[in-house]
Amino acid sequence: MLEIAALKRALGLDGYDAKREEEMLQSLTSAAMGPFGPAEVREIFTAIFRASLDIQRIEGRNSMRVFRRDLVPASGFLVAGVPIGGPEPVLFLGPCSVETPEQIEAIAAFVARVPGPKVLRAGAFKPRTNPHTFQGLREEGLRLLRQAADRHGLAVVTEILDTATLDVVAEHADMLQIGARNMYNTELLKAVGRSGKPVLLKRGFMATLDELLLSAEYVLAGGNDRVVLCERGIRTFERTTRFTLDISAVPLLQKETSLPVIVDLSHALGRKDIMAPCARAALAVGAQGLMIEIHNRPDQALSDGFQQLNLDEFTQFLDSLGLPSAALPEPVLEGHHG
Amino acid sequence: MLEIAALKRALGLDGYDAKREEEMLQSLTSAAMGPFGPAEVREIFTAIFRASLDIQRIEGRNSMRVFRRDLVPASGFLVAGVPIGGPEPVLFLGPCSVETPEQIEAIAAFVARVPGPKVLRAGAFKPRTNPHTFQGLREEGLRLLRQAADRHGLAVVTEILDTATLDVVAEHADMLQIGARNMYNTELLKAVGRSGKPVLLKRGFMATLDELLLSAEYVLAGGNDRVVLCERGIRTFERTTRFTLDISAVPLLQKETSLPVIVDLSHALGRKDIMAPCARAALAVGAQGLMIEIHNRPDQALSDGFQQLNLDEFTQFLDSLGLPSAALPEPVLEGHHG
Amino acid sequence: MLEIAALKRALGLDGYDAKREEEMLQSLTSAAMGPFGPAEVREIFTAIFRASLDIQRIEGRNSMRVFRRDLVPASGFLVAGVPIGGPEPVLFLGPCSVETPEQIEAIAAFVARVPGPKVLRAGAFKPRTNPHTFQGLREEGLRLLRQAADRHGLAVVTEILDTATLDVVAEHADMLQIGARNMYNTELLKAVGRSGKPVLLKRGFMATLDELLLSAEYVLAGGNDRVVLCERGIRTFERTTRFTLDISAVPLLQKETSLPVIVDLSHALGRKDIMAPCARAALAVGAQGLMIEIHNRPDQALSDGFQQLNLDEFTQFLDSLGLPSAALPEPVLEGHHG
Amino acid sequence: MLEIAALKRALGLDGYDAKREEEMLQSLTSAAMGPFGPAEVREIFTAIFRASLDIQRIEGRNSMRVFRRDLVPASGFLVAGVPIGGPEPVLFLGPCSVETPEQIEAIAAFVARVPGPKVLRAGAFKPRTNPHTFQGLREEGLRLLRQAADRHGLAVVTEILDTATLDVVAEHADMLQIGARNMYNTELLKAVGRSGKPVLLKRGFMATLDELLLSAEYVLAGGNDRVVLCERGIRTFERTTRFTLDISAVPLLQKETSLPVIVDLSHALGRKDIMAPCARAALAVGAQGLMIEIHNRPDQALSDGFQQLNLDEFTQFLDSLGLPSAALPEPVLEGHHG
Repeated sequence: MLEIAALKRALGLDGYDAKREEEMLQSLTSAAMGPFGPAEVREIFTAIFRASLDIQRIEGRNSMRVFRRDLVPASGFLVAGVPIGGPEPVLFLGPCSVETPEQIEAIAAFVARVPGPKVLRAGAFKPRTNPHTFQGLREEGLRLLRQAADRHGLAVVTEILDTATLDVVAEHADMLQIGARNMYNTELLKAVGRSGKPVLLKRGFMATLDELLLSAEYVLAGGNDRVVLCERGIRTFERTTRFTLDISAVPLLQKETSLPVIVDLSHALGRKDIMAPCARAALAVGAQGLMIEIHNRPDQALSDGFQQLNLDEFTQFLDSLGLPSAALPEPVLEGHHG
Repeated sequence: MLEIAALKRALGLDGYDAKREEEMLQSLTSAAMGPFGPAEVREIFTAIFRASLDIQRIEGRNSMRVFRRDLVPASGFLVAGVPIGGPEPVLFLGPCSVETPEQIEAIAAFVARVPGPKVLRAGAFKPRTNPHTFQGLREEGLRLLRQAADRHGLAVVTEILDTATLDVVAEHADMLQIGARNMYNTELLKAVGRSGKPVLLKRGFMATLDELLLSAEYVLAGGNDRVVLCERGIRTFERTTRFTLDISAVPLLQKETSLPVIVDLSHALGRKDIMAPCARAALAVGAQGLMIEIHNRPDQALSDGFQQLNLDEFTQFLDSLGLPSAALPEPVLEGHHG
Repeated sequence: MLEIAALKRALGLDGYDAKREEEMLQSLTSAAMGPFGPAEVREIFTAIFRASLDIQRIEGRNSMRVFRRDLVPASGFLVAGVPIGGPEPVLFLGPCSVETPEQIEAIAAFVARVPGPKVLRAGAFKPRTNPHTFQGLREEGLRLLRQAADRHGLAVVTEILDTATLDVVAEHADMLQIGARNMYNTELLKAVGRSGKPVLLKRGFMATLDELLLSAEYVLAGGNDRVVLCERGIRTFERTTRFTLDISAVPLLQKETSLPVIVDLSHALGRKDIMAPCARAALAVGAQGLMIEIHNRPDQALSDGFQQLNLDEFTQFLDSLGLPSAALPEPVLEGHHG
Repeated sequence: MLEIAALKRALGLDGYDAKREEEMLQSLTSAAMGPFGPAEVREIFTAIFRASLDIQRIEGRNSMRVFRRDLVPASGFLVAGVPIGGPEPVLFLGPCSVETPEQIEAIAAFVARVPGPKVLRAGAFKPRTNPHTFQGLREEGLRLLRQAADRHGLAVVTEILDTATLDVVAEHADMLQIGARNMYNTELLKAVGRSGKPVLLKRGFMATLDELLLSAEYVLAGGNDRVVLCERGIRTFERTTRFTLDISAVPLLQKETSLPVIVDLSHALGRKDIMAPCARAALAVGAQGLMIEIHNRPDQALSDGFQQLNLDEFTQFLDSLGLPSAALPEPVLEGHHG
């Protein structure tokens, strides 16, 4: 049927040297003997030729760092002292954007009291669809984020948008986030690979798992093995959720790589009402961490307020997961911080 | 239906400020005349017109049986004595197709020993993509399936393809399955609605959740409330799995309807190696049952052998879920039955 | 990478007999000699084994009627005297649904005056998403449609939903339409294959081109070669149009089969404002016909009013295509017919 | 933006009756008090609030440059003397990548003789999925491309991947291409907006048309109005083509903006055999230009060889379009240039 072209593409035969194959086949078929006629010999050696290309591909794969299972030990690796990829799932918590000193301080204070491994997340450089909406506090946001994290002894991950701001982001953050819209940004991937900073790499919402692994390979090929992969929903025809959470991506990625795999629930779902069952599913499937947007005043958020949990909602959420939340204090009263 | 959230998002109301709306409403209602010119009045009443359409839609929704939460009690309902939708998840187990007396007997004997609520599933009428492949044993398959089930005291679900064979299928089965390819087959939905037999309704692999609920409404509108909804993967750009398991469909459907919701893992994934973690995810998200294809000799299966677990694999699978499998005997030796 | 499973599926190796392959490989490798070691021999014969399966597939394809290029002559075939698949594109015109005697008469009178080959289309049995909306006039609609067509010497195509109503539809229609929602309805495909009536087969909005060709094969395998394939838009993430018109489907299908291929613009687009340029594109790409919904009073239509052209709009549309419309009279005044 | 139609559809207003709405508005405005109780008043003013949000959105839209129809005159604009967006379609021709001095010289010499407006395209910085494949000649490629173009009096467009290389790319190119993988790269969009260089902006393969228009707005908001939009296929479930050419995107974009819209056939299709009919469709639908990859030796290409036309194929292609090719010389003999 129609799939020959698709097959060639799947086999990596797209640009293979047809002329060289033809010459080989000519010489082979002219020497055909035994039980096979020239037509059969041609078929068989076409198959062999393809198989050898296949083997080259598999060898190519074996030489890639992303597929090596020895790079990340069973205990995972540390990001500013926080173990990621180890036995305990890690929570990546914080607002969509750094907005004010009071806001990020209130949230950092809250996150610090969440039990277990956690990282403070918040955007200073924001890749918004509409150029006339809030674009982030940029350098000022980085400073506020770092200061709040330091006051509470937290590790920080924040998004990097461009190679030009790599130095300033790397100076303030413990971990660099490559967002879904930059998963194919090869220059940026190379740059964070050279930086040596741990990387949180989100799957593009139109990216296959193979493409995600190859984007990770861009980072690892630069000598940087501390990469966390993040499933955050793919774009499909279904619009009841903002994206479609591809839960099977987690075990599929874990079969291919030893890099830790986490799930960003806030962006995958784009709604809060089903976050608890989906978080249970993500942990049950084997995710090594969850990213969840929380905000002390979601109703005043400058971006994505509708999908951020308030601190009270988050405490209830944690309870419903069966994760320890006993140490968590009463929900912080809104607006009384700083 | 489910589209209130989508509607809000389309309207840009996702994160809208309820407090500010309240304030505006207060000041507007206290000064409802005067400040508006003819153009504003027109705009306002255009809005009223839209709002009234909205209300009509919500009223239409309220009159549909699929959205009534009183139809299915908390204990669920019985299908040939098996409680579905109650506290225990139900396993729908069996081969893709009924193939031989020995095959279905071996599998039925095995299924009978699985602890907990379960239903034997197997296809007699097969909707194959290619007309030149195995189309099922049809009536003969129904008879073999019924006899094997009766020997082991099992309830049976099997797919119905057409209104013309409704009577013979209903005579042999305890539950009628509408497959993904027939979810939009309105004549068939009406017919099974009139039949009174419990129905297992699979989501079309390109169907929105709203469309699934409306297909269920076709059945319920015929007076038949014993309907189980089944998420079985949607078609997306990702091809690592055969379809993409839309795990969030489970809680989203449960928010809208009291009909039980189950997950068909075999068709969603099309591969066996990640079935255990995905089953854990499905149960964790709240699925009220799992459908899994099992076969005593998958390597000899006449359809979809690659995605059917053998009996030994299934026993290990059950162990890995933490579901009780202690009562399960040694895996049945292949080929010694009949 | 992850694509081995996908590859096997693409190759049709899903359910291949691994045990038999292993036995063959064992015996072959134990007799390895010459320049190749056992590992190489294993690789080579694995390739040969796969190639032979490939050849079986291609042979299977060659035996299918849908791929035979001799079944439909260059002049196409006749449906009630209308040449389809010949040099002139055919217009399939009419309302979404038969609604009243006056409505179908007004539209039939108009269609009769459109120059060139044309077929009157209208639905009597409607597969609506919502069970509480208009389901068509059913048998009464068939009679009204046939009478109006006979008064104006038109050929008629109408949708068939179920095998149970095949006889009555075949009695009234010149051509049977299988809608997008029934493209996978194998029982219905077999039945229309046996009926001998020409068939208009729409692509399911989630169906690959291979699946469409295999559905056509179901009809042809029954001995019925007068089948027209219809591209009508696929479901994607883009929602600016109701579906996404897959224009490249037309030449791709024409490369595989000699069955005529047409485009249903109304359902693909779901909007009227870009119908003229898209119709020009469809004709330019080689479509052998266009289906367009027209209605004398779209504002009163009982289904899909928003996407139906009124008769005046259609006359302008025809002008803009450069198709002959000189013979077309003044647009029929609305509401003065019957 | 484009979402008015989507919004209406979400609201169920697609086919709403404007006349009936007018009548209701008349009667409501004449009786605006009395019949409503407090609950109704609340509902009504909730609707008013929503309407005012709607109006704000439309006002936001009106202030965006991308929607202003006065920015690009009917004659289009010039890129190094080549009129783009005027009455004649523009051809963007050249290889996927600059590879050798001989290769780019041979292709430039050929392109120079193609009649009508044309631009030489070739990649020097390549955003490859796999980090271990050819990444482009980078600065050296820019120099080779510029020199070959200058020898033949051609305008040049080439892809820019990162703000850090903006200056060097802008120095050598007449037009900057933002590839599909960078359509959401807001830092890069802002930078090319400030550069003042004409921009060729490709649609991301999972981007809605609204998102494409907003990405263009990023460039225009920087004061740079010479932007060309490029449809290049979207990612869907269909894999017979590499992507799915969304032909209706062309007229939909042209309804919203006066920026020229072109179609990249090579990437949309990923195969050569249906390029001619699809090119006819693109021109028929109103595309103001076509991008097509051509190569003097596709079988030796370092990237995407399978989808590049050789020079002979391109000459035949041009003939089949009915575009003037008389002036085109005999296909350049391969390998004799430099």
